[in-house]
Amino acid sequence: MNSFVGDDFLLSTATAKCLFHDVASKLPIIDYHCHVNPKDIAENTVYENIAQLWLDGDHYKWRLMRSNGVNERYITGDMSDFEKFEQWAFTLDKAIGNPVYQWCHMELRRYFGYEGYLSGANAKEVWSHCLAKKPEGFSVHELLRKSDVTLLCTTDDPVDTLVHHQAIAADGRLETKVLPAFRPDRVMNPGKADFVDYIGRLSTVSGVTIVDWQSLKAALSVRIDYFDRNGCRISDHGLNNIDYLPASESKIDGMFKERLSGGAVSEVEEKEYQTELLRFFAESYSEKGWVMQLHFSAMRNNNTAMFSKLGSDAGYDSIGSPVNIKDLSRFMDRLASMGKLPRIILYSLNPYDNELLVALMGCFQTCEARGKIQHGSAWWFNDHNSGIRNQLRSLASLGLLGNFIGMLTDSRSFLSYIRHEYFRRILCDLVGQWVESGEYPQEETLLKRLVADISYHNAVRYFGLQSFHLRGAETL
Amino acid sequence: MNSFVGDDFLLSTATAKCLFHDVASKLPIIDYHCHVNPKDIAENTVYENIAQLWLDGDHYKWRLMRSNGVNERYITGDMSDFEKFEQWAFTLDKAIGNPVYQWCHMELRRYFGYEGYLSGANAKEVWSHCLAKKPEGFSVHELLRKSDVTLLCTTDDPVDTLVHHQAIAADGRLETKVLPAFRPDRVMNPGKADFVDYIGRLSTVSGVTIVDWQSLKAALSVRIDYFDRNGCRISDHGLNNIDYLPASESKIDGMFKERLSGGAVSEVEEKEYQTELLRFFAESYSEKGWVMQLHFSAMRNNNTAMFSKLGSDAGYDSIGSPVNIKDLSRFMDRLASMGKLPRIILYSLNPYDNELLVALMGCFQTCEARGKIQHGSAWWFNDHNSGIRNQLRSLASLGLLGNFIGMLTDSRSFLSYIRHEYFRRILCDLVGQWVESGEYPQEETLLKRLVADISYHNAVRYFGLQSFHLRGAETL
Amino acid sequence: MNSFVGDDFLLSTATAKCLFHDVASKLPIIDYHCHVNPKDIAENTVYENIAQLWLDGDHYKWRLMRSNGVNERYITGDMSDFEKFEQWAFTLDKAIGNPVYQWCHMELRRYFGYEGYLSGANAKEVWSHCLAKKPEGFSVHELLRKSDVTLLCTTDDPVDTLVHHQAIAADGRLETKVLPAFRPDRVMNPGKADFVDYIGRLSTVSGVTIVDWQSLKAALSVRIDYFDRNGCRISDHGLNNIDYLPASESKIDGMFKERLSGGAVSEVEEKEYQTELLRFFAESYSEKGWVMQLHFSAMRNNNTAMFSKLGSDAGYDSIGSPVNIKDLSRFMDRLASMGKLPRIILYSLNPYDNELLVALMGCFQTCEARGKIQHGSAWWFNDHNSGIRNQLRSLASLGLLGNFIGMLTDSRSFLSYIRHEYFRRILCDLVGQWVESGEYPQEETLLKRLVADISYHNAVRYFGLQSFHLRGAETL
Repeated sequence: MNSFVGDDFLLSTATAKCLFHDVASKLPIIDYHCHVNPKDIAENTVYENIAQLWLDGDHYKWRLMRSNGVNERYITGDMSDFEKFEQWAFTLDKAIGNPVYQWCHMELRRYFGYEGYLSGANAKEVWSHCLAKKPEGFSVHELLRKSDVTLLCTTDDPVDTLVHHQAIAADGRLETKVLPAFRPDRVMNPGKADFVDYIGRLSTVSGVTIVDWQSLKAALSVRIDYFDRNGCRISDHGLNNIDYLPASESKIDGMFKERLSGGAVSEVEEKEYQTELLRFFAESYSEKGWVMQLHFSAMRNNNTAMFSKLGSDAGYDSIGSPVNIKDLSRFMDRLASMGKLPRIILYSLNPYDNELLVALMGCFQTCEARGKIQHGSAWWFNDHNSGIRNQLRSLASLGLLGNFIGMLTDSRSFLSYIRHEYFRRILCDLVGQWVESGEYPQEETLLKRLVADISYHNAVRYFGLQSFHLRGAETL
Repeated sequence: MNSFVGDDFLLSTATAKCLFHDVASKLPIIDYHCHVNPKDIAENTVYENIAQLWLDGDHYKWRLMRSNGVNERYITGDMSDFEKFEQWAFTLDKAIGNPVYQWCHMELRRYFGYEGYLSGANAKEVWSHCLAKKPEGFSVHELLRKSDVTLLCTTDDPVDTLVHHQAIAADGRLETKVLPAFRPDRVMNPGKADFVDYIGRLSTVSGVTIVDWQSLKAALSVRIDYFDRNGCRISDHGLNNIDYLPASESKIDGMFKERLSGGAVSEVEEKEYQTELLRFFAESYSEKGWVMQLHFSAMRNNNTAMFSKLGSDAGYDSIGSPVNIKDLSRFMDRLASMGKLPRIILYSLNPYDNELLVALMGCFQTCEARGKIQHGSAWWFNDHNSGIRNQLRSLASLGLLGNFIGMLTDSRSFLSYIRHEYFRRILCDLVGQWVESGEYPQEETLLKRLVADISYHNAVRYFGLQSFHLRGAETL
Repeated sequence: MNSFVGDDFLLSTATAKCLFHDVASKLPIIDYHCHVNPKDIAENTVYENIAQLWLDGDHYKWRLMRSNGVNERYITGDMSDFEKFEQWAFTLDKAIGNPVYQWCHMELRRYFGYEGYLSGANAKEVWSHCLAKKPEGFSVHELLRKSDVTLLCTTDDPVDTLVHHQAIAADGRLETKVLPAFRPDRVMNPGKADFVDYIGRLSTVSGVTIVDWQSLKAALSVRIDYFDRNGCRISDHGLNNIDYLPASESKIDGMFKERLSGGAVSEVEEKEYQTELLRFFAESYSEKGWVMQLHFSAMRNNNTAMFSKLGSDAGYDSIGSPVNIKDLSRFMDRLASMGKLPRIILYSLNPYDNELLVALMGCFQTCEARGKIQHGSAWWFNDHNSGIRNQLRSLASLGLLGNFIGMLTDSRSFLSYIRHEYFRRILCDLVGQWVESGEYPQEETLLKRLVADISYHNAVRYFGLQSFHLRGAETL
């Protein structure tokens, strides 16, 4: 029996306990994909209370509160911080088996020293405990230090000035390296109403007047160069799915110009544009040595009425159909045939894509890099005990787990670094079970290296972060 | 080591044993969705022997017998009750890991006091034991009492007179409340040969002459009112899948009139009709405060030759492709946008829809009810140890398990109430594992309330059954 | 704690250990589906070292080496056997949780008596150990004897002369029966460039001049007769998926003649041809009493550049979309309606087809055979601990596990027979867990028969191999 989120939480074997306590728990964190606001880091924002840390913008929690019948006023509305916190505490009483239940209590222990469990019945007591523990609130820098984060990558639009990243780098107070990541989703969706405006902004910021397909690519190249000079190593694409529809340059050019002049694009034209633009991005990343992240199968903004009230990222997204695996294969094949396939991390929100993605990526591995194509860590709705376990197990069964680059938070919160701990515990537990059943030798050196690699070192190597001389990576 | 279907069957931790024995095993049963015949309840049918209880109409068992190479004469044919029973016993010898194996032995223990296991080798002995134990046979009322069922909902066609429900209510001998449920599948399928005849019956029973789309809806409203007056709280729709194709009232009206006059409907017209009719039903349920059950992804009557011999529900159905999740989203979104989304329970026969449905339903939860949209218990081909576990685990991981309305039998048999015991054991075991691994605090009060809620109380609240003052629900 | 690939490897309960050691480990092997070369058996090829046994043609291992960034020269290139072996050893260091890791070490123990574990660090030592243990190399006959294989089926093209099978049968030195299996994939793909040439070869070998649809079927019937006379009992079809598009004989005839004269076939025509040809094959097998294997959902040759260098079966295949379950149902229904449905084994490479296939096959079981329609053992990318467990569990949950025909290697290597041991361990472990949790009685006789049947005897019965009087099958 392991005590609740205690020392041996999730660790069911002696091997697991040893690996976690001796190796995994001691390593710093690289969080190569998240959604924290660089402004908050640059300005070292202070969060006054736990409600601000927990409930501002955290749509995971909002969804659960709605499931518990909580009125929207206590979620995104005008109620006080404590009143929201109390409703969240009542919601937790129903959340057995949910990762958020476990994360909250890990956060209460690790950051606030609260050893009990939060419930609707003791919300006031816990609230007071946390306030008393940190009357001055938590600053971002303090949280990053306490969480032992040596490097993180934010997610940024091509038109972003990266002024906050520059400020953070210039400041020098923070040990954590903060790099931008390039996420050009808005240029991928010509059907959206604000597309032409967006192209205008891209013209301005790039200094390239965008009038056609060539100048669009030129402007994007300018921004890629700019991001690269600002330390960017990673791109990110959020795609509903992939429809591989190649088209000629002239066709795309015609469609794009038509759209710029206010015309409409058909569904097929949009897919052709996306195919060719995604290819352009992939080739550019390949040339720059960047990693390309592809996120598939989210189904966004399902609730129109709530979207019109709250906008996107408010807890109204869900899981879409599986990846069009044949189209993904053709896309990667085309790039491979041209010698322009970048390092890629594949993620799908549909948990039943795991094996398909791992099997497919095995067809595009080459000697250019260990684990050149990666299957990303269990994402979003899959980021829980069994989802993480399934991702690790399918990757191990069909590929080489030892080369896996491991965990990321994908979070908007500076408390979410405990998810790395959560992931590492599950990793160690799975490894322990393999050893216990006789599937892997009980060979300490190999096992420790494996866990250390997946927890930290593989990411350093894969993203080429050696030049930063990150703490804990000295032995590489 | 737990003894075979013994006291601690399926319970692997001390927490699980305590929760099951102290809480779950003591609560009565609400069976809110099943297919028992209300006539059998009204007339208090007596089953003479175990073959009649087990093998009449139980296509789960028929399928397994066919898999064991048993001749159809021993399944749906003219062989004697004992001869059929004996073939079933031989089939059981091969059925390790099948839930029916476990259910049969739970039934032998709980209803017949038989502690051994049934095999082809001892079929005669077990047959005699059961006959000796209950020479007078089992009556329906006796079984409902012994099973501690406080309320059940049958499944009824809109044209049904509900005469048996009225007789049961008038009789008063039976503690079990027996409510009808509204299942209008026949009006949803205009392509079927008997559709026009069916509309004629609906006209007669409703007193509304159905000549067009408006009068069809008027007739259905009359029947919904009638069911409501007879205690109905729940509807049910069996859909192959969902194709969301909205159409104008006039278009549907034209198509419907054409069909009434003997014309054909195209596939698209059928889907438009189904879209608009399902919307009409949903709005009506929303107004009445009924719950809407949606059952997706069954693939029925795969074997034409056997269908022509035995008709439907004879063991020739299987699992279809996943739910069209985007279309389901659009359907629910339309209702939500109109403020007419009723409480809904989503079921899919495809086990790989679990996470998609739970993620989607999180987008439509509101403060109108706790757990307004529910993911139904593991259905039919998923109603087994790992299927139930997967449904519970995915619901817990992505939603609030504490608000789950729990188990139903979906059965045609009056012995099937042991499936509630089976479900509760798995629930307690899963909860015990979470506690054991440190994922949830070992807090007796919270845990007991959780198990009691899912086993019984949540269904009382969700379906609004408080006015029945059901035994065991007094504490609400 | 079980020692690494030791006696109790994968066996977690006393029941499992007893069943494996007393029953499963003692039974010989029937390998009813594999890809070893009959020429190697006829000529009793000798493998000089472990690299030849392990790395020649084993694309499972090639894929992992590429994932580890190994240069292609060490995989399919011109480097020495030892150099390749060493790179493989370095790759193994990353392969925790991969079945190949476990298989390799089982092979090192069972065939080479090496009790340690192979790593990049000790590759030279293990290489020398194996060479010293078997300086004369391993011959095919020695490996088959050591592996206790009483019967195996190769996979052969209809135009194959079967000369090696005849030589093996005539020789008589080998106890192992070696039967051909009929795999007519090339005649199923009229779109391929070499199709017309292939038809020419089929004409020659059959002695039937193929000029139209009728003569094509006549030629194939000649070859089916020929295979049947040479001991064939099993056919095999590798299908991307199934699209059921029936067409008239005359339509197929026209299309086929057009193709023979050099014309093209449309996608629809190809599917119609495949539908009708597959039906012809199924009817023929039904008449002959052969078993039909259907392998679905492989997505082949994803990497065009590597395909042009290495051809097919070089590690560039992956998992495709799920089976078109409705079309498979219609195909089987048509055959059943005609009374021409042969015994069929269904395999899908997509692991999320398990439950769908098992549910569907239950609709076509008849008294003609126990378990007439089978769900094949976990195939290829699913042939690992959790994949095997999932296949067994879904089969048990929805069907009759006791009638399952069990394992096959599907391998090109004469060392792969340890996969039967691997499978049997998992089977015994799963059975042990059912007993342990109280889901099945601890009844030794039943349990031992069950394990023996699935390990060996069911295959003897299902494929009608009684006349061979295979060792270990005497008790049938």
